Amino acid sequence: MVSFESDYIAGAHPDIIKRLTETNLESLPGYGSDPYCDSAKKKICEALGMEAEVFFLVGGTQANAVIISTMLSEYEGVVAAKTGHVSVHEAGAIEYSGHKVLELPESEGRISADDLSKYLHDFFEDENHEHMTFPGMVYISFPTEYGTLYSKKELTEISRTCHEYDIPLFIDGARLGYGLMSKKNDLTLHELAELCDVFYIGGTKVGALCGEAVVFTKKNMPKHFLTSVKQRGALMAKGRLLGIQFDTLFTDDLYFSIGSYAIEMADKLKGIIIKHGLEFFIDSPTNQQFVVLENSMMEKLQEDVTFSFWEKKDPDHTVVRFATSWSTTEEDLKVLDEALGRL
Amino acid sequence: MVSFESDYIAGAHPDIIKRLTETNLESLPGYGSDPYCDSAKKKICEALGMEAEVFFLVGGTQANAVIISTMLSEYEGVVAAKTGHVSVHEAGAIEYSGHKVLELPESEGRISADDLSKYLHDFFEDENHEHMTFPGMVYISFPTEYGTLYSKKELTEISRTCHEYDIPLFIDGARLGYGLMSKKNDLTLHELAELCDVFYIGGTKVGALCGEAVVFTKKNMPKHFLTSVKQRGALMAKGRLLGIQFDTLFTDDLYFSIGSYAIEMADKLKGIIIKHGLEFFIDSPTNQQFVVLENSMMEKLQEDVTFSFWEKKDPDHTVVRFATSWSTTEEDLKVLDEALGRL
Amino acid sequence: MVSFESDYIAGAHPDIIKRLTETNLESLPGYGSDPYCDSAKKKICEALGMEAEVFFLVGGTQANAVIISTMLSEYEGVVAAKTGHVSVHEAGAIEYSGHKVLELPESEGRISADDLSKYLHDFFEDENHEHMTFPGMVYISFPTEYGTLYSKKELTEISRTCHEYDIPLFIDGARLGYGLMSKKNDLTLHELAELCDVFYIGGTKVGALCGEAVVFTKKNMPKHFLTSVKQRGALMAKGRLLGIQFDTLFTDDLYFSIGSYAIEMADKLKGIIIKHGLEFFIDSPTNQQFVVLENSMMEKLQEDVTFSFWEKKDPDHTVVRFATSWSTTEEDLKVLDEALGRL
Amino acid sequence: MVSFESDYIAGAHPDIIKRLTETNLESLPGYGSDPYCDSAKKKICEALGMEAEVFFLVGGTQANAVIISTMLSEYEGVVAAKTGHVSVHEAGAIEYSGHKVLELPESEGRISADDLSKYLHDFFEDENHEHMTFPGMVYISFPTEYGTLYSKKELTEISRTCHEYDIPLFIDGARLGYGLMSKKNDLTLHELAELCDVFYIGGTKVGALCGEAVVFTKKNMPKHFLTSVKQRGALMAKGRLLGIQFDTLFTDDLYFSIGSYAIEMADKLKGIIIKHGLEFFIDSPTNQQFVVLENSMMEKLQEDVTFSFWEKKDPDHTVVRFATSWSTTEEDLKVLDEALGRL
Repeated sequence: MVSFESDYIAGAHPDIIKRLTETNLESLPGYGSDPYCDSAKKKICEALGMEAEVFFLVGGTQANAVIISTMLSEYEGVVAAKTGHVSVHEAGAIEYSGHKVLELPESEGRISADDLSKYLHDFFEDENHEHMTFPGMVYISFPTEYGTLYSKKELTEISRTCHEYDIPLFIDGARLGYGLMSKKNDLTLHELAELCDVFYIGGTKVGALCGEAVVFTKKNMPKHFLTSVKQRGALMAKGRLLGIQFDTLFTDDLYFSIGSYAIEMADKLKGIIIKHGLEFFIDSPTNQQFVVLENSMMEKLQEDVTFSFWEKKDPDHTVVRFATSWSTTEEDLKVLDEALGRL
Repeated sequence: MVSFESDYIAGAHPDIIKRLTETNLESLPGYGSDPYCDSAKKKICEALGMEAEVFFLVGGTQANAVIISTMLSEYEGVVAAKTGHVSVHEAGAIEYSGHKVLELPESEGRISADDLSKYLHDFFEDENHEHMTFPGMVYISFPTEYGTLYSKKELTEISRTCHEYDIPLFIDGARLGYGLMSKKNDLTLHELAELCDVFYIGGTKVGALCGEAVVFTKKNMPKHFLTSVKQRGALMAKGRLLGIQFDTLFTDDLYFSIGSYAIEMADKLKGIIIKHGLEFFIDSPTNQQFVVLENSMMEKLQEDVTFSFWEKKDPDHTVVRFATSWSTTEEDLKVLDEALGRL
Repeated sequence: MVSFESDYIAGAHPDIIKRLTETNLESLPGYGSDPYCDSAKKKICEALGMEAEVFFLVGGTQANAVIISTMLSEYEGVVAAKTGHVSVHEAGAIEYSGHKVLELPESEGRISADDLSKYLHDFFEDENHEHMTFPGMVYISFPTEYGTLYSKKELTEISRTCHEYDIPLFIDGARLGYGLMSKKNDLTLHELAELCDVFYIGGTKVGALCGEAVVFTKKNMPKHFLTSVKQRGALMAKGRLLGIQFDTLFTDDLYFSIGSYAIEMADKLKGIIIKHGLEFFIDSPTNQQFVVLENSMMEKLQEDVTFSFWEKKDPDHTVVRFATSWSTTEEDLKVLDEALGRL
Repeated sequence: MVSFESDYIAGAHPDIIKRLTETNLESLPGYGSDPYCDSAKKKICEALGMEAEVFFLVGGTQANAVIISTMLSEYEGVVAAKTGHVSVHEAGAIEYSGHKVLELPESEGRISADDLSKYLHDFFEDENHEHMTFPGMVYISFPTEYGTLYSKKELTEISRTCHEYDIPLFIDGARLGYGLMSKKNDLTLHELAELCDVFYIGGTKVGALCGEAVVFTKKNMPKHFLTSVKQRGALMAKGRLLGIQFDTLFTDDLYFSIGSYAIEMADKLKGIIIKHGLEFFIDSPTNQQFVVLENSMMEKLQEDVTFSFWEKKDPDHTVVRFATSWSTTEEDLKVLDEALGRL
């Protein structure tokens, strides 16, 4: 069956599988000290146009928990949108590390610099703030959980607010490739890296089998980070698996091509949705499209195509998500178009 | 200066100091195994009109963290009002124990059975709930952080909802004495104990030097609870200090007399506020009264009387709290009355 | 350079790379719910000759931390040899989860049933044991960190002791394949599974790119285990990566062939060590061989061959480790033989 | 019955009870911001003969857990004697905070500078130390759990070793008063404070109802310490209870008089033990005396006197502990003498 269920339904981009195969017999040292990890780090810095410290982790929840828990002081929590992945969909991984997620209101998954500024101002002005969790980091996702983006202006303001309070800004880039290559995006990778203090370049959802490249942009990698990663069960013995994948993704701009291709497919998918007169739940400029379906229509469509349940809109309608990726084909879109036509 | 700053501005009720002095030279075993702890537990059960397991802890945040973290499974969080003490004013003590506080909307500090029911229903219906923190306990405070109460009907509905989902209900009774003795209260201590699964009888804020009596009402004290208490640094060596205080508080209904007296003082204080035409921020039926003061008036009043800052209402007005306790005197009220008269 | 540095210097066994490539374009659901995970679990149960619950994790430290922290009660610790991997070489991952490692004396990496029995007896007899960490699980590794094995008799006695005290036995099988296929081993996989309560089948060190198959043998998988795994950042989005690897490893006994082959190579390596008159630090019957080298000899040998530093024996001698795996070749051994000949 | 069970069998020293009574009606601010806390801190600094940051906590396990967990980095553990209180008798409180206790060998409860130095040297020299818990603090107790002391020379060497590796030295002074006033002690309080980085002055076991005064001697109190204390459930609302007690203990040298008196009583008790030809388990120069009793003799003695079980020596003999304190009387000693005479 044709699937738009997520952007991680397929294995790895074929170039990655090819490189894993080619390098398979090489004897390499473990724990990220192999030459492929080194090369990948170098290429990522080149793509950033700046010096940075890079560390490869396996998955997104892990990356969020490791970054947040190693950068926060014990009395600090992380500020995030009420809908942020760290707040809602990580089974309490941040709290498991002992830290509170401090929720801000959001709009289509985005927080605003104004809300952030007001929150920080009020916190430090409150006479009782020593009895409360200190805000020690701001977490945003780019794109957000709703596929939306921060503009350069918005990100600049959020960044300025964070730094005014000496609080690091962390960008969850689990789907960074789709955000950067969106036609609505006005931020370069370099600018994004400059504006934040730490972010990660998502591999799992952008063509890798697994892997996230954590980037510390201000010479601020926590001391003995490898030990803290190991302590959290997140250090991969065959670090090559991550190094080779990211080395491939950052060779000949593969990471960006994957992003562009998925965006192109998403645009075509959007066209099909519009053509069939369906309603969008949100205007997403990236590879995730949120569509409102009448319940019986949704059930019928599931006979031909898979997608993911997002939320109930009302008793008769459901919001579903269609995601594209490097593995989405024109043929897949055609099947969707025809299936919608039959409804 | 006359102080209405909190209900813990004085030492202990004189009867407690007297008993501590009288028993001071007795040789007693440690860690809560002395006869005063036993006697206090027995008297508390008599006051409850039921069998229960009782354990004495030192303070409120400690009691909340110990109860919540020992009763939850690791994948569970505690549901609480957005304004709940465990959510806002405990410096992240619950998250420090690895558990998320799952916030519900509130009204004057109270959650509703409807909101709770909807939340629990939606959670378990959500296809992705295995990626989310499970609700494993419901926390409410009685009185709430705003001095308000749940009616018998409200508490019964919340209790029913919890038990429908097999989730224990925990009542933070840091100020229980004032809630029970409020003229608006229609719950007996017995009923409250029956409706919840665990609660604590606050001592620190109701006449003791320190101490909270944790009550497990369903033979549900966590296994090896003493060890877990010790592990959290919360086991008092001279457990007699807690035992003697609660033994005194539950002799001749002292705990309830303290509650009644403070309520009576609060009612008189209310009358003074009304007499001087001031606005209440909330209609509290217990010993905490929240009053809106014009800023310059507030500053002037501070010359004669202390109270506590609650929150800013608008640029020109502030919400302040006046609290009464066993140590509030008619003379204190007179000073307040006169000071307000001079404004 | 020829490397005997570890058993994870190469990529994956070629059959695994082949299957990853063949299945790469298939659309599969995430988080371990794909048919390859199902098939792998079924094949593992067949190899065990019993029903069991199987869950795939990424790495060894992660597996240890997840298993121990989800199976222990909060007031419990895990009993392990003083040299156990969880005690020494996991950067405090067990303590990070809040649990103490309770160390027992060891001999060549093994604990004895007698020491265990004495420890447990003394613990529960101690009047003050409620002020101490309760032993809640026993951890052993098979093979141990020194390459040694427990005999069937030894494991049976340890198992009996554990169950006498109602404490689960956990076997860390990071190198299980080499233990089972050792010529000194008298335990079947079925017997091992029966004697313990949980164990894992190591993939990372036995031919996979990554992955450990956790096996609960007594219908004792912790409730909502997937959520706890996610909470610890250990849930892989593309679970297929683990499923396909274990499905391949348990097809046509590949896992066992890899074990046998490495043991055969280790035996040949042993012969070379003996031929050159070198001393063994320990008599290991598995794929890790510990050899004492005079320091200047060690430095010279490093010009031709890599191996790993184990520990200093005395100012002039060092213990080094040679490891074999599926990727060790006869040619590698020849290079070692010649290099030793030149010393 | 006459009791030598511990040094916390009685309430508080009468001077403390008197002051608590006298100050009981005063209105004071909470959380340690009252004038008695300020005064107590000042008097402690005077007794130290140096500037220091002082914070009052309720109990010993709590003090150990708070100090260790706020001063360590996440990847660090605390080095302690295998018999150290934090390692054995705190129900895993240190591990609960996420940190490993790294055990050193001991002799009569003391670690040696040589063992410490060797351990630290080997750790940092080990190529794999990034996979291990870093030593981040050294914990010793003065007196130790066996009542023994470190000499000035020993403490100076341990201190020098710690500082050579830039690791803070923490002294658990739960029974500090008895150590300082021991006739065998050659350290002043000033010297002890200078040699370590943090220590606490035990109140619970030296005349208070509860309370430990944590002293940071190098301007090294962790940032936002009050918030971290609150987060661990260790912040007392009526901080006056701790302030008034320590203010009294450090008025007219009461703390030291209590220590001296108990030592005098212990010396007399020692004389009685010797007179009756009984064997000491250890030669303790402080208020705890460890005596070997034949089992049937022990049972008979328990009819007249209580003491505490320490450990079994052999099937026929038991080690028991007699403790003295401010509340021990000449009459108590006479009862013991006579009871031993009747055996």
